Amino acid sequence: SKEAIVALQRKNLAVQPLLAIIQVVMAFIFYSNSVKTLHGFRVILFQRWVKMTIVEEVLKLNEDPRVHGIYLHLPPASLTSRVLDALKPEKDVDGITYLNTGRLVQGDLNKGFVPPVASAVMDLLRKHGEVTPHQRTEYRYAPLSARTTCFVLYCVVFIYLFIVYKNVVHSSSRRLQEQQYRPWRLRSLNLQPLTPVPSDIEISRAQTPKAVDQLAEEIGLLPEELEAYGRSKAKVRLSLLDRLRAQPDGRYVLVAGVTPTPLGEGKSTVTIGLVQALSAHLKLNSFACLRQPSQGPTFGVKGKDGVFNLHLTGDIHAITAANNLVAAAIDARMLHEATQSDKGLYSRLVPSVNGVRRFSPIQVARLRRLGIDKSDPASLTPQEVSSFVRLDLDPSKITWQRVVDTNDRFLRKITVGQASTEKGQIRETGFDIAVASEIMAILALTPMCAHSTIWYPTTGPDVSVYCQGVSGALAVLMKDAIKPTLMQTLEGSPVFVHAGPFANIAHGNSSVLADKLALKLVGRDGFVVTEAGFGADIGMEKFFNIKCRTSGLRPNVVVLVATVRALKMHGGGPNVSAGMPLPREYIDENLTLVKHGCLSNLRKQIEIAHLFGVPVVVALNVFKTDTQPEIELVCKIAKECGASDAVPCHHWAQGGRGAVELAQAVKAASGRASNFQFLYDIEMPIVEKIRTIAQKVYGANDIELSSEAMDKINDYDQQGYGSLPICMAKTHLSLSHMPDKKGAPTGFILPIRDVRASIGAGFIYPLVGTMSTMPGLPTRPCFYDIDLDPLTEEITGLF
Amino acid sequence: SKEAIVALQRKNLAVQPLLAIIQVVMAFIFYSNSVKTLHGFRVILFQRWVKMTIVEEVLKLNEDPRVHGIYLHLPPASLTSRVLDALKPEKDVDGITYLNTGRLVQGDLNKGFVPPVASAVMDLLRKHGEVTPHQRTEYRYAPLSARTTCFVLYCVVFIYLFIVYKNVVHSSSRRLQEQQYRPWRLRSLNLQPLTPVPSDIEISRAQTPKAVDQLAEEIGLLPEELEAYGRSKAKVRLSLLDRLRAQPDGRYVLVAGVTPTPLGEGKSTVTIGLVQALSAHLKLNSFACLRQPSQGPTFGVKGKDGVFNLHLTGDIHAITAANNLVAAAIDARMLHEATQSDKGLYSRLVPSVNGVRRFSPIQVARLRRLGIDKSDPASLTPQEVSSFVRLDLDPSKITWQRVVDTNDRFLRKITVGQASTEKGQIRETGFDIAVASEIMAILALTPMCAHSTIWYPTTGPDVSVYCQGVSGALAVLMKDAIKPTLMQTLEGSPVFVHAGPFANIAHGNSSVLADKLALKLVGRDGFVVTEAGFGADIGMEKFFNIKCRTSGLRPNVVVLVATVRALKMHGGGPNVSAGMPLPREYIDENLTLVKHGCLSNLRKQIEIAHLFGVPVVVALNVFKTDTQPEIELVCKIAKECGASDAVPCHHWAQGGRGAVELAQAVKAASGRASNFQFLYDIEMPIVEKIRTIAQKVYGANDIELSSEAMDKINDYDQQGYGSLPICMAKTHLSLSHMPDKKGAPTGFILPIRDVRASIGAGFIYPLVGTMSTMPGLPTRPCFYDIDLDPLTEEITGLF
Repeated sequence: SKEAIVALQRKNLAVQPLLAIIQVVMAFIFYSNSVKTLHGFRVILFQRWVKMTIVEEVLKLNEDPRVHGIYLHLPPASLTSRVLDALKPEKDVDGITYLNTGRLVQGDLNKGFVPPVASAVMDLLRKHGEVTPHQRTEYRYAPLSARTTCFVLYCVVFIYLFIVYKNVVHSSSRRLQEQQYRPWRLRSLNLQPLTPVPSDIEISRAQTPKAVDQLAEEIGLLPEELEAYGRSKAKVRLSLLDRLRAQPDGRYVLVAGVTPTPLGEGKSTVTIGLVQALSAHLKLNSFACLRQPSQGPTFGVKGKDGVFNLHLTGDIHAITAANNLVAAAIDARMLHEATQSDKGLYSRLVPSVNGVRRFSPIQVARLRRLGIDKSDPASLTPQEVSSFVRLDLDPSKITWQRVVDTNDRFLRKITVGQASTEKGQIRETGFDIAVASEIMAILALTPMCAHSTIWYPTTGPDVSVYCQGVSGALAVLMKDAIKPTLMQTLEGSPVFVHAGPFANIAHGNSSVLADKLALKLVGRDGFVVTEAGFGADIGMEKFFNIKCRTSGLRPNVVVLVATVRALKMHGGGPNVSAGMPLPREYIDENLTLVKHGCLSNLRKQIEIAHLFGVPVVVALNVFKTDTQPEIELVCKIAKECGASDAVPCHHWAQGGRGAVELAQAVKAASGRASNFQFLYDIEMPIVEKIRTIAQKVYGANDIELSSEAMDKINDYDQQGYGSLPICMAKTHLSLSHMPDKKGAPTGFILPIRDVRASIGAGFIYPLVGTMSTMPGLPTRPCFYDIDLDPLTEEITGLF
Repeated sequence: SKEAIVALQRKNLAVQPLLAIIQVVMAFIFYSNSVKTLHGFRVILFQRWVKMTIVEEVLKLNEDPRVHGIYLHLPPASLTSRVLDALKPEKDVDGITYLNTGRLVQGDLNKGFVPPVASAVMDLLRKHGEVTPHQRTEYRYAPLSARTTCFVLYCVVFIYLFIVYKNVVHSSSRRLQEQQYRPWRLRSLNLQPLTPVPSDIEISRAQTPKAVDQLAEEIGLLPEELEAYGRSKAKVRLSLLDRLRAQPDGRYVLVAGVTPTPLGEGKSTVTIGLVQALSAHLKLNSFACLRQPSQGPTFGVKGKDGVFNLHLTGDIHAITAANNLVAAAIDARMLHEATQSDKGLYSRLVPSVNGVRRFSPIQVARLRRLGIDKSDPASLTPQEVSSFVRLDLDPSKITWQRVVDTNDRFLRKITVGQASTEKGQIRETGFDIAVASEIMAILALTPMCAHSTIWYPTTGPDVSVYCQGVSGALAVLMKDAIKPTLMQTLEGSPVFVHAGPFANIAHGNSSVLADKLALKLVGRDGFVVTEAGFGADIGMEKFFNIKCRTSGLRPNVVVLVATVRALKMHGGGPNVSAGMPLPREYIDENLTLVKHGCLSNLRKQIEIAHLFGVPVVVALNVFKTDTQPEIELVCKIAKECGASDAVPCHHWAQGGRGAVELAQAVKAASGRASNFQFLYDIEMPIVEKIRTIAQKVYGANDIELSSEAMDKINDYDQQGYGSLPICMAKTHLSLSHMPDKKGAPTGFILPIRDVRASIGAGFIYPLVGTMSTMPGLPTRPCFYDIDLDPLTEEITGLF
């Protein structure tokens, strides 16, 4: 039926221009006809439009008994003998008016009045004999009703014409979109930069965003590819990938950063500023791909731009539901197995419905996996029944945790099953924050639709054994979450918000699907700017080795975000921590600290990007305390360290205009040949892959594996997961595993405490130190300030 | 700004008809002007439309040096002396043509030709002296370009006119809607009833629903009152209540049931069938208000109509987020108080931002509550600081539970805080299913918008003490959930789906707001059909005593749903339980059992409705095994027991057509005077209120309170909650507290095990027996059958 619709659309495309032409012709005929009918000079005026028919018209008049005489009103050229010969002698010629440009002369043959007409014509006229003046002459004259009808017909035709025209324009533009790259006609929203810069929420409130369907139309989405959620956000259907599969991809820009201070260095704002500069100022098709922020931190310590609605389109809620369904299913299954006989389990698992027992497709798959090739439930031997009904999960080995989207530290470690109804099946487990769910990691890395075959999260050492029962339900729960959410920046540039895997234990990048859709939408000369979490040593490394490997996409440029503040810290400045005033060094000019920071951390991060063969543009996110010499010094050293370019950005104060220089640098760098390569071969042993990352990226001398880690690696190797990529779980506050070692530490041994696997998402994650997967609320969470204005429904207190 | 928008809209309404008139006049002028310009006879044709200006036109021609002579082409009535006097003598009158209906006569004054014109006119013409025929005469003649321009102007004006007309029609219809009741022009979708009846999901797939914006327009919603979520569902803004406040409410119909079997007796399908019959067949405005189903049971034992999307519009997710934020805040606060000094807490709760310390509005409210009337944080005494910073919550008395929207029985009782980071602050708590959250109960009962003042759930004995910090955040999280979701039945009738409080411990009805919106939308002669959970003894009693008390709405009719199956059970039939085949008694005709069931449970439930003074229509939901004598017997006895009417319903097989008889009965009953009254006075002591319900509704001899219950009641009385209504938590499988006592048991003592309060939602709930607030998954949950079709994205396995 999908193909049928497409075929029908194609057919419409072909028919509509034809219809339009018919309409134009019809309108023209109406016009000429109505003119002649309006005034009753049928012969004469008709003649002026369609010269060929005058003789026929005269012949018709000859036959009309109501016409007794004729009054001619013609240009001289028409007064030919053919015309006059055609008249029957019994019809009186009551008069002739002949027209010339701007002149009108009339006369009456009977009275011998001779206007300046050629005498040859006069002779012809005389052939028709005398015309008696007293004879009654009858002329057809269109009555008022006919003229009114004509008037109404006019209206109808023109309106119809107008609508047809609109459709034609619309469908031909669709056609164009299907076939070739086209620069968008994006309406930019003007930003009025203010001094002092107001709070984020004030800025976003002052700006009225475009309706999302307008934005979608501007960037070439078809209405049927959009699922609106309210006025300003919409899900985009994945069928788009199919429609635009012949379209070449745009250029792919990754925004990464130097090792940050705990305050963050503004990668997200650089991403948005760059896209605004590219689209609103350089008029290039461009798209930002961002991660969806978690709700937990929003109410904890981190305020978020009002553009991000708290629930957004419910993706994280869907992940929570899917994750917890798996958890509930695991515990319930263990309980049922512990409390029921094989026979009891079997009669419940394969119940008799209207007297018939049948395996469900999911159960048939399990039977095949067990090597039982039977389809009649009655034919299983007791032993086969037992192996079919018992998953024999070991409670102590279940790694699957429940999740909530709240910073709820008391759920980090809990004991469940303490009610008497659970018959003593208690066990220790815990909750993670929703974005740390493996479901989120799968969502972010899957290159395809929500079909159940992709939902096989790692619930324990014997992966996906249990989940085969629940993967279909997961697919259903994730059906909408798999579609990226389209939003816009304050200047009206398009943004995809999709997925936000926890960067501590996953790859911390936005989704593969969002990037793919965006690359098709911007087309060959467009730009997609996507962001990697944490510093380049973590987010960028995972982006290249994991995300690019899965997606098959190749980046053209890396934008490395740096701040004078972070560089001073790396150059030896004192500690920076959230909630404390910044030390003097960070407020006053200090070229020495800046220089040391550039030569250590910035240089190292540029080198890491070059390991992958991708050109680097350094974007210095300028703060108001930064001095001109500091800015110039950073740019100078960055270029010396091999960056293609290094430019200061003022997007925070000026919006897209403040990032135009960066946009130009990115555009230039993206034109350069990039010879992208992975850091390690996927078939290398797990230990070697970890060592490669530690040595080449972090600058470690070597790695040191705990015996626990070593055992796990052997396990994974035996289970056939040895050729998965590595997703390091390491602090983001240092290139090493020690958060207080700033700059570019060397000579250390990286300890690998433990190794885990996200088989469903497709990576192995070694743990370097302890990773918290559940943040807590501070003493004064920011919800203290949050409220809803009862009249305007505006949210107050988000900053 | 909201008022400004409304004012602007009002202004537009007034301006648009005026604009339209101007446009019509303009178009008319264009028409006449273009006609005259097209042919050059300026004076003459202009005259025909605007008689008054002929003299002025002649005077203008007098002054035009390019005009040497004039040719008049006028109806005889216009050839007055005023016209001819106006001509200067030096202008030649070259000819006169005068028009009459259907005739045209012309002549030349100079040559003495006298057409049949009044001689008075001839005299006047002669006054202008001789006209020499050889003089050159010049006439202005509109060039082609002018005519083309005219043509284009035509088009533009007509298109404009068309658009303006549409707007006028639109805005005047809006106006009408604001002021008066109007029958909807609802497009019904035809249902082709099939035999055998296909599964629910097949039926819903076979039907293409109307776009939700079309449905909204049909029922009189304005586009700005709608927030679309995809194509088929939308949130409706509460501003509607304000716009339609002058509109009279429609008739209010409650669907309740006899005491059900564990299989359910089809109240929801009766509700939908009735609304379909009313709207699609009786052509009356009507609306169904349904509860949102929980996701947990969907994957557990209960399939749901495909119309209900699993996440719907995310309301239950919002409730989960809000509920768990409160829980996380409570535990985090207890931890912070346990591990920090007064001074430490104070410096964190009232931090110095840019050197300034300030209380947030929420904190100021707490200070006022403590009797501290200070606004400078530095001025508090150490003792005031201590009482400000310490909530001193008693972990053992916290009643607030976390929630998930999954049937996760292992979370019924858990221990939290076992990670070392929580420093030994472990405590026992549990999770409820999301719909059992008090937030849901508040949502269902609130008659107003999401402002923070309504979000004060009961977190423990010292209610709302802690929550004052979080109520603003709750308002923000619930901002969208508070708006009802508009959907449609299979036959295109409108449905509100909103809230679904757990009927075990809350009132189990859909939201007050949805009912209010629907009553305004249907208007005076329309019908709103809303459903109460469980049997009439529970759902209906709570509907009347709690929901109607809060909303101020008064029901017109109660529809009591009965089935032959349930009546046979009450008449002494064997046990019915889910998953087991039905005993013979329920498949074969058995008039004795039916009769006994009618005379016990059905009669009692009708009497309960009559206690409240509302007429009852019994709807017998017919199954294919029911025989005609059984059906007739039920209807006969029901009428004898005092029902206004009793009719069989066949909506399950035939859709709305099968419930037409019911719709007519409901319409008739709604016309009867209803003298609604509450069962108890709200100011009665709590114990008396409970006793009244037990005796009058359940048929108990008396109640028996546990000492725990008695203590709690005294506590609530002291805290001033004595005048809240009562929300009984009792089994729905019997009128008594004993699920196996069918029919209408009497002579029992109702034991009250415990009493709890939902202060935020506004009711006290006595517990009669143990109420589970967290269902579990069965051994074979229905997710075994659920999957997503990878090509069509259709969900398979939901039945």
